[in-house]
Parts: sequence; C-alpha cells; structure tokens
Amino acid sequence: MNKKLSFTIQKTLWKARLWTLQLNGVTLETPIFMPVWTKATIKWVPLERMCAEMLWTQTPVRLILNNTFHLYLRPWDTLIKKFWGVHTFQNRNWLILTDSGWYQVFSLWLSKSWKSLVKIVDDGVWFQSPHDGSRHFFSPTNVIDIQRNLWSDIMMMLDICSPVHGINKKKVAQQMYTTHQRAKQAYQYHMESYNTYNWVLFPIVQWWLYTDLREESATILSQYAYDWIALWWLSVGETSEELERIVSFVTDKLPTDKPRYLMGVWTPKELRQAVYNGIDMFDCVVPTRLGRHWWAFVWDDVLKIKNAQYKEDFWPLDSTCNCHTCRNFTRAYLHHLIRESEMMGWTLLSLHNIAYLHKLMETIKEEIRNT
Amino acid sequence: MNKKLSFTIQKTLWKARLWTLQLNGVTLETPIFMPVWTKATIKWVPLERMCAEMLWTQTPVRLILNNTFHLYLRPWDTLIKKFWGVHTFQNRNWLILTDSGWYQVFSLWLSKSWKSLVKIVDDGVWFQSPHDGSRHFFSPTNVIDIQRNLWSDIMMMLDICSPVHGINKKKVAQQMYTTHQRAKQAYQYHMESYNTYNWVLFPIVQWWLYTDLREESATILSQYAYDWIALWWLSVGETSEELERIVSFVTDKLPTDKPRYLMGVWTPKELRQAVYNGIDMFDCVVPTRLGRHWWAFVWDDVLKIKNAQYKEDFWPLDSTCNCHTCRNFTRAYLHHLIRESEMMGWTLLSLHNIAYLHKLMETIKEEIRNT
Repeated sequence: MNKKLSFTIQKTLWKARLWTLQLNGVTLETPIFMPVWTKATIKWVPLERMCAEMLWTQTPVRLILNNTFHLYLRPWDTLIKKFWGVHTFQNRNWLILTDSGWYQVFSLWLSKSWKSLVKIVDDGVWFQSPHDGSRHFFSPTNVIDIQRNLWSDIMMMLDICSPVHGINKKKVAQQMYTTHQRAKQAYQYHMESYNTYNWVLFPIVQWWLYTDLREESATILSQYAYDWIALWWLSVGETSEELERIVSFVTDKLPTDKPRYLMGVWTPKELRQAVYNGIDMFDCVVPTRLGRHWWAFVWDDVLKIKNAQYKEDFWPLDSTCNCHTCRNFTRAYLHHLIRESEMMGWTLLSLHNIAYLHKLMETIKEEIRNT
Repeated sequence: MNKKLSFTIQKTLWKARLWTLQLNGVTLETPIFMPVWTKATIKWVPLERMCAEMLWTQTPVRLILNNTFHLYLRPWDTLIKKFWGVHTFQNRNWLILTDSGWYQVFSLWLSKSWKSLVKIVDDGVWFQSPHDGSRHFFSPTNVIDIQRNLWSDIMMMLDICSPVHGINKKKVAQQMYTTHQRAKQAYQYHMESYNTYNWVLFPIVQWWLYTDLREESATILSQYAYDWIALWWLSVGETSEELERIVSFVTDKLPTDKPRYLMGVWTPKELRQAVYNGIDMFDCVVPTRLGRHWWAFVWDDVLKIKNAQYKEDFWPLDSTCNCHTCRNFTRAYLHHLIRESEMMGWTLLSLHNIAYLHKLMETIKEEIRNT
C-alpha cells in the first residue's frame, strides 16, 4: 500500500521545515496558509482575483479549505457529489481540504442560544440544522462518507474539541479517549478503501494546556496518521505564549516525516512562531473577517481604514505590499468605499489580508531556504 | 473654436446609427450601454472583471457614469480634485460621464420622508444632505464647477425633471422655460472656458408626453448642444409604447450630427427600440440592481435564480452567453450562493446582466453594420 501523499524535505532551519508536498497531481511548498472557501466561495473576494494573487509565486498556493458542516447542510454533500465533487461545483481545480464538521457543531454547542440543538454521544454527535431544525448525526465513519461525497482531497477525522471553561481534567481525558476510539474507527474505515480513492485522512491532536494529555494523544494518534497529522489549537482564550509553549512541546512528540497542520491561527507573530516550532500548514477565516470589519494588516501592525485620518491619505494601504489592492488604490479611496458601505471596500481589504499572509509565508520560506 | 468631441458616421440602418466617437484620446463605437459607477465603484462587481468583460470586443466600452450628487456629498468633489480627478481616484482611465446631480435631488423631493430636505428655486435647488443634514445649493454654474472638480469628461447641465403626477401642463411649461434659462446660463459659462478644459457639456430635453413641449424644448436646447444632446426619459410610470412614440418623435427634431443619450432605459426590448429610433447612448443602474435581487437576463427573458427549480440545474445561466459567469459556473452553484447570501452570487449575476446588455449592443451594431 503506497501513500498517496508525497512529502519531500528541501531544507530545515532549527525546527522550521521547507517541504514539497504532492497530492493528486498538485505540487505545493510548505509552510503554507490556506484561504477558507467556507461555503464553496471565499467570502467577499472574487475568485479570479484571489487566484491571480495566489499564483504569482513560483510555487503557487493551490490548496483551499471547504467546510463540511456548511456544505453538508446546504446545498448537501449528495448534490455536490452529482456535480463530481466540490472542485467542479465551485469551479476550482485545486486541492481541497475539508474539516470534519465538528468545529461548527461545537460552536453551536458553545453558544447559549443554540446549545440545545446539540447532543454529544459516545459514537458521534446529534444536532439540528440551524436552517430548518432538521435532525442530523455525525459519526466517525459518516463524516468520511460526507467528505468523500464532496470529493475532498484531504479529509479530517471526527474529534471532540474540549471546551476550555467549565470542564475538569478528568472529563477532558474522557473526551480524549473517546476521540482516540473514533480515530481508530475512522482509520480502519478509511484504510479499507485506501487504494480505491484519491483522498487522504488525518487525525487531530488536542487537549489544551495539559502536556501529559497532549503527549499521550500525540503518541496514540500518530498510529493513525498514515499520511498526515493535525494540531487543533484554537478553542477560546489561550494566550500567545501558551500557544508557543504547547506547539513546541507537541511537535517534539510528532512524527517528523508527516505534514503538520495547526488550525485557526492567524496573527503574523503567531504564524511565524509556529513555523519555527515545526508547523507546516495553517488556515483561518480571520483575514477576510478582519477585512469586512475595515481592518488591514500593514507591515507589522493593523490599520483601521475607516478612521478619519485616512480620508485624504494618498498612500497605498501598505507601501511594502505588491497585492492588487496596494498596487491600484489609495487609502483615501478605500476609506471612501468603506464609509459608503460599498462591497468593493471589503473585497479589497480582504484580498490584501489574504495576500499579506501569503506573502508572509513566502518570506519565511525564503528565510529557511537562504539561512 | 474646435469641438473636442469627434463623432463620425460609419453606417445607418433606418434611424439607427453606428458612429465612432472620439474624446480625450478614447475612441468608442455607439450605440453603447454605460455601466454606472455610482459612488466611484460599480456596485458588487469587481473592477477588474468588469473591465475584462468590457474590453473583449474590438471597440471596447471605455465609458462609465459617475454620480455627481453622491461624490459631491462624499468624499467631496474638492477632495477628488486633489487626486487629479475621479479617474485617478477610482483608478480607471476611461471616459467619465457625470450627471448634473439633479436626479438624486429630485428623488429626495419625490419621496415622502425626504421631501422637506429640498427647495426648488428659480436659480437652482437647495437641499440638505441625507448624511448629516448640511445645506447645499446646486446652480446651473456651480454644478459645472463640481463636475470640473471631478474631472468629468462629459458633463450634464442642471435641468428640472418635472414629476409625472400632481402637476398640470402650465406648471410643466414653466419648469421647461426655467430649464431653458438654466441651459443658456450653463452654456455661456461653459463656453467662456471651452478651450481651456477637456470636458464637454450637454443639455437635456424633457417634458414627458407633451409633444409640443418636447418639440419646443428640442429646438431651443439644440442651440446649446455644441457637442452633444441628451433625452431625459425615465420619470415614473410611462409605458413602453409611450416611450417608443416619444423617442421617435423627439429624435426627428434633434440635430443629426450629435450623439443622443437616453437616460434610464434598461429593458432589452426598449433599448433595441430606442436604437432603431436614433438613440446612441444609454445608462442605467438596473442591471446590477436586478442582480442583487437574484434576477438575470437570459436570452429573451429574465430568470429568478433563487427559485427552487435551479437547485440541481447543471446548465449555465444562459447557454448563449460567453460572459465570465456563464463560462464558469452553473445555475445550481449560483442558486447555492444566493441562498447562502454569499456576495459572490450577487456579483456574478450583476456581472452577467451588464455583459448581457453589452452583448446586446454588440449584436445591434452588427445588424447595422451588416444589413
């Protein structure tokens, strides 16, 4: 049984890794930041412009994330299957990574008004659709079926992401064991047909700040990481220092020959720290969300373009940036668009923020390559 | 004194005209449909994609409309002047046509809740900003100054567009004479510096269904149409047959050697009728507004993509169309985006609608050329 994913080392720098990744005919370089195509589109950014931004490097970003939960509920994974998968549906023939759907269910469960919609059980999770109240069940195996229906290239296992507050260590440990059990089930189910399909599946290491649990989880789950392994980070309320400490701790316990994916991290500082602690892949919706709230990354800061000081500012958003927005428009124009609630303003800011993180990864790759 | 605008006949077909128009280094063919860049951006359509659609023909559309009223109030014409005009501000070096600002003031005056903000006087109109209540005045000469601040290529004179309801013919005639007086004032003011600046100015013929007033107005205003003349059509409630009758009547009274611009007409049927009655230019915001309400032009009909029948429809929006939307996406995907309120859905529909009218004009030009 040959692995579908090839992951070849080019260069390392301390714990940072510059690798070439090949899957289903697509070649990428890591470290990489994946834009999130939540519901089969990236929020507020026109597809074509996004692609142009992502293709300008020698090793273009051709890897995006779609959310299983959203596409499962609407328009349905089965409908997308009829379109020969989400690549065809959204007309983007890149690698598609899908999550397990758990995080969105977990978000319902965390919120006061939606909590009653969710019931976590040992063999999965029951939930009601926020759209129409219909009842659904995610199990370790059916989320694989759903992700296969989407024709995902890279699938994730159903886990349990423990909440940070209102839970003791014993309960966390129980949830961890349940997750390990699920991972085993998912792994077996996936491996039965591993040679039949073109997708890969990976487990997720969690358990917040408990280093002993992290270590145990890393050891157990490494067994099921045939191609890949992920670290679930973002829950609620961790500090940047805690993040760095735990990432450094866990990456020491992980197999060195597999890509490592850290979820939900987005600040430039934390991304850089994580790469230098051995992480290869990232995703987050925040860059576009910030854009829709008038914020833009600039050099080593963020800037709120709605502020009156930019009304007559003839400069680009970030003079060191060569993205579409910064090449073509002034801060004054962006300020005007945002003040007028014109879609184009949010679009141009979101595009810049994605391009900024993309460029950050390029810079880090150059550091690794040339140091 | 040489005219800045050159307008050269290529071919006519009955009353329809295929002309080449040259102004400020830009060459266009008419008939032409201008997209509306209301507040220095076209609503919901990314600039670059819009441009790509408009440039694919041999004689690309490089003429767009900006609204004086909106840009005067925000970000201010004087700020835009500091940017060397609206071309630079919105980074689009095409021909810019600006309206006089009257229609937006008139719209305030027609609405129950804003009526009190407007006071029409003989030498102009007083109004309060809907943004902050500040008081402003538009006069026949200061709207020229404002449009010059914007660096408009093609300016319009301040007119009075009489309401259709609640007004008798005598009052309409009075408003017409006031408009003629204003046109004279504007013409004199403009001609004093005609050779200094690169913009042209045109008067507007109106007066609803009164053919005698239309004729009188056409005759008087033709004197002030040094470069150009426009017909103001859309007020409220005219039928398609009334439109055709009046357009046919008025175009017979207009100089044949000047471009004629009919405002606010957008249905494919009416556009076609108007071209064959001697109209050269059109604009309207409706194609993008329809897109934002889920409607798309298809062949000889309109289609509401939100309807459930399109949920699994694998076809493009319009199989006869080669726009970006129709080349790349299915109805099912557009239906999904609209159901999810994803911006991309409105964008793709708006883009298609503009491209559709653009293509309609191309088709009509071919008919004129080849018949």
